[in-house]
Amino acid sequence: MTTDALVLDAAAQDLLFREARTANTFTDEPVSDEQVQAIYELVKFGPTAMNQQPLRVVLVRSAEARERLVQHLGEGNKAKTSAAPLTAILAVDNEFHEELPTVFPHFPGAKDYFTERPARESSAAMNGALQAGYFIIGVRAAGLAAGPMTGYDAEGVNKEFFADGEHSVLAVVNIGKPGENAWYPRSPRLAYDEVVTTV
Amino acid sequence: MTTDALVLDAAAQDLLFREARTANTFTDEPVSDEQVQAIYELVKFGPTAMNQQPLRVVLVRSAEARERLVQHLGEGNKAKTSAAPLTAILAVDNEFHEELPTVFPHFPGAKDYFTERPARESSAAMNGALQAGYFIIGVRAAGLAAGPMTGYDAEGVNKEFFADGEHSVLAVVNIGKPGENAWYPRSPRLAYDEVVTTV
Repeated sequence: MTTDALVLDAAAQDLLFREARTANTFTDEPVSDEQVQAIYELVKFGPTAMNQQPLRVVLVRSAEARERLVQHLGEGNKAKTSAAPLTAILAVDNEFHEELPTVFPHFPGAKDYFTERPARESSAAMNGALQAGYFIIGVRAAGLAAGPMTGYDAEGVNKEFFADGEHSVLAVVNIGKPGENAWYPRSPRLAYDEVVTTV
Repeated sequence: MTTDALVLDAAAQDLLFREARTANTFTDEPVSDEQVQAIYELVKFGPTAMNQQPLRVVLVRSAEARERLVQHLGEGNKAKTSAAPLTAILAVDNEFHEELPTVFPHFPGAKDYFTERPARESSAAMNGALQAGYFIIGVRAAGLAAGPMTGYDAEGVNKEFFADGEHSVLAVVNIGKPGENAWYPRSPRLAYDEVVTTV
């Protein structure tokens, strides 16, 4: 099945989706703060429910912080994270509702939907995941490869990096130029007819 | 702050993020199955944890199905959904783990992580939201506008469209070419320094 029906040019399709892959090794080339900011300034426009923006990004740059992170990762994720040029912790701030009067100003009552913690956590997880997806696309838009991981002790990461108890890690993402043997073989995707139905 | 550090061309940046907006009105121009399939064949490559693919898409095309959907929407979402050229229900299949031996074949034990329903629901919500984000980007890649909504009676939508009790709606998305006065003014985004920190 072709993607001729798309407006996005084929090179961009390849860059963002078709040839982009989850990387497991990286070159030594650094990833600059300017690159990360460029990624954010693009993907911040991705839509969420009531424009809520729970995503927070912690760039792990110091050797000390990297060690603190790696200890909470699953065994299979330790070595590649120790060697990656940049690692970002993607988390949500479960107190995101405090920002709603600013980021969703035309509906002053929005904040009141989230007085209960479970409602906040559920909404932060959903909209934070949307934002995490946009962020990964943004990493690729910068010509970089992302290696998102969910194999870690989440409670350990939360306590180590978010002392306020109000943040929940969503993913840890290695970022850089892909190195040697960066990819596993691509795993199968479900067919269109397995995913899409019409009523 | 510029996005000069990106590799993705400026037209694609605009198409997918900077000029793309959540649409509230649409023209009458139809959205074809071929367009939807092209979107899927592109965004199916977006990464998820253990390549799980919980997302399911129900295209609401018949007048009867549209009525069945609209009755469960919040008042503010009824008229625009009745008038949209295409509406898609994005949901997750909480039984996605049954597919893991096929879609994540190199780790036969993956399915066993999800023997408990709460673990499945949590993972389906997270990875389904990632896939929903990719899908919205794909709609824009097709030169169309997406109008994602979360204002509905979720239990009502689930019962109406997923009789098996194993699916959970994530979002309802109107899709088409933007019509007159399609956009609200863009709401503020958090600044880079409010979102990204370095350790």
